[in-house]
Amino acid sequence: MGRLTGGDPSLLRRINSAVVLHALRGSDSPTLTDLTRITGLSRPTVEGVLEGLVTSGLVMETGPDEGEARRQGRPARRFRFRAEAGHLLGVEIGPHRIAALLSGLDGRIIGAGSREVSETACADDRLERARTLVADVLRRTGVARSSLRAVGVGTPGIVEADGTVRLGTALPGWTGLALGERLRRSFRCPVLVENDANAAAVAEHWKGAGTDSDDIVFVLAGLSPGAGSLIGGRLHRGYGGAAGEIGALHLLGREATPETLLSTTGEPLPPLDEPAVAKVFAEAREGDERALAAVDRFIQRLVHDVAALVLALDPELVVVGGWAAGLDGVLAPLRDELSRYCLRPPRVALSLLGEAAVATGALRLALDHVEEQLFAVEGTVTARR
Amino acid sequence: MGRLTGGDPSLLRRINSAVVLHALRGSDSPTLTDLTRITGLSRPTVEGVLEGLVTSGLVMETGPDEGEARRQGRPARRFRFRAEAGHLLGVEIGPHRIAALLSGLDGRIIGAGSREVSETACADDRLERARTLVADVLRRTGVARSSLRAVGVGTPGIVEADGTVRLGTALPGWTGLALGERLRRSFRCPVLVENDANAAAVAEHWKGAGTDSDDIVFVLAGLSPGAGSLIGGRLHRGYGGAAGEIGALHLLGREATPETLLSTTGEPLPPLDEPAVAKVFAEAREGDERALAAVDRFIQRLVHDVAALVLALDPELVVVGGWAAGLDGVLAPLRDELSRYCLRPPRVALSLLGEAAVATGALRLALDHVEEQLFAVEGTVTARR
Repeated sequence: MGRLTGGDPSLLRRINSAVVLHALRGSDSPTLTDLTRITGLSRPTVEGVLEGLVTSGLVMETGPDEGEARRQGRPARRFRFRAEAGHLLGVEIGPHRIAALLSGLDGRIIGAGSREVSETACADDRLERARTLVADVLRRTGVARSSLRAVGVGTPGIVEADGTVRLGTALPGWTGLALGERLRRSFRCPVLVENDANAAAVAEHWKGAGTDSDDIVFVLAGLSPGAGSLIGGRLHRGYGGAAGEIGALHLLGREATPETLLSTTGEPLPPLDEPAVAKVFAEAREGDERALAAVDRFIQRLVHDVAALVLALDPELVVVGGWAAGLDGVLAPLRDELSRYCLRPPRVALSLLGEAAVATGALRLALDHVEEQLFAVEGTVTARR
Repeated sequence: MGRLTGGDPSLLRRINSAVVLHALRGSDSPTLTDLTRITGLSRPTVEGVLEGLVTSGLVMETGPDEGEARRQGRPARRFRFRAEAGHLLGVEIGPHRIAALLSGLDGRIIGAGSREVSETACADDRLERARTLVADVLRRTGVARSSLRAVGVGTPGIVEADGTVRLGTALPGWTGLALGERLRRSFRCPVLVENDANAAAVAEHWKGAGTDSDDIVFVLAGLSPGAGSLIGGRLHRGYGGAAGEIGALHLLGREATPETLLSTTGEPLPPLDEPAVAKVFAEAREGDERALAAVDRFIQRLVHDVAALVLALDPELVVVGGWAAGLDGVLAPLRDELSRYCLRPPRVALSLLGEAAVATGALRLALDHVEEQLFAVEGTVTARR
């Protein structure tokens, strides 16, 4: 049971540091006076906290603004948060593509890159490709590897808390891979591994189609479908990290994989063959009847999977992403069917982040980790039960 | 943004009161010295807090224990929490039955009662029956209505935050009923209305099959099936209170209601006719082939519904309750099928509370409400984003 009454001075210092940092990030080069006003702290307290933050490199004193420089007398001291004091990486490791985003401590993206990768690449090759990509992004932006404070990684599969892939059938050699541990060898900072759909859900909430809702289901449509959900703004991973793994739903009386549903020949498409899928969607747009029927079958399945998630979770918003192509036609039937099946149908929107969703979410998770260290202070007092 | 640094004295008093109350509830007539040791507060602070709590009626001074009474000198003052300072009601309003549980502020049950009710009774009659039952329980236990601090109610349907039933097809006149408002006329305390499966989930977590898990799905099997879930020990209601309303899942490509599945004649059973269901289960136990096939169809459907919930939420534990009869045969096939469909199958258990689950959960929700007022103190300090 936490208590406030012990008067722990180091806790108070941490609280005050967090409060001042928060105020610094929310304002443009505030003065000492601004900071005392915003935080409600005394001037000596703010001064003491700032001294520590400057020493740590997180804050710097800036010059007086132009008006002040011209005026007589000693100008007020101004301070700013140093977003450049550390950096974060968000990495997607997918079946066909590896992507990386680099940001400062404010989350603003300052570098990006991506590489194609074969869906048959072994785990070692895939990891090597990810390392090369990251090295390239760091080199191009001139950011030292030692400046990285956290790395987030989004990838298909059920991921354990320690970053081990418990089950990942979409990528060769992925099941059982100690992905977090392997990547930690390349970085001296924490590496956080997350399921790709979970990462995408976080991303759409941060800067995509879900910024105005805290109760979101993100559906990653594709040949290896999955879903991620936020409940009250927090990622719901499930007890064993497997929440939203709707890939198995087709077993529930509907023995139909996307590869079978989207076939126009009677034979399933080759596994994970996205170009073959794009071809079917393109043919459907041109009015080909077999392709239209195939796309319709696929959408029906997607609708069923989404309906099951919506009935279980009752989100405010469903965001559909994954395949760049072919999703335009999904929204109308999805809305229709959800309003038939659901007692309170959620809003439905397409992903705004598209291909960038997984890496963006991975970056946000890295940022969350660092912000938790920088800003969050445990001060909860509960005395229930 | 909450802050600790403003030095709000009334907040500190509330925190200290909560801490002392918590310590009092957790120990057997502690002395002042015990309380300072348990809470870490100073003796004058504890004395001040106790004075306020005694005035409010929540705490009383007790006599010295036997050993002390015999010893020389002034015996230590002892205190105890007065569970009898207020009372709570948990009420189930169901299709066939109304039940009520009465407890003191410690949640210990001191009175109970139930009444049969026809599934065709109109809302006014059903409410009148509930009122009569409550009056009877209060009279029999000698508890004054004015002593009630909160009333929890569990009932089928989607329930809004204000206690209005948005949709409740199982009971005549239930959809649109301002149930909370109607019941508040009979009580001068808060009335909290909750979906029955949600209430049952809370109950199994409190004192049923789920006391050792915080991530639970409770499946209310029956002719009007539903589910409730706890995530991290908290009830997940969903954005619109409709989470777990799996009754619509049979529409997903399986146009099969329990009444149809459990029929042995080709004609569906009468709606909500529980005795007819019990007969089918009884015939199945006697080896009747048509009944066995009917029960098997029903179990298959239940398995599918549960699998969809499990894939969406990934709970640690699934508790199955609802029908008292006929559920024994459910566990084995449920475990088999879940291990086929789910990447990490949850544990599966039968409800331990049976018929009492909904009223027990309603009581716990009332208790939560009161404890929140008595014990919880907002002291969270966060300075994120």
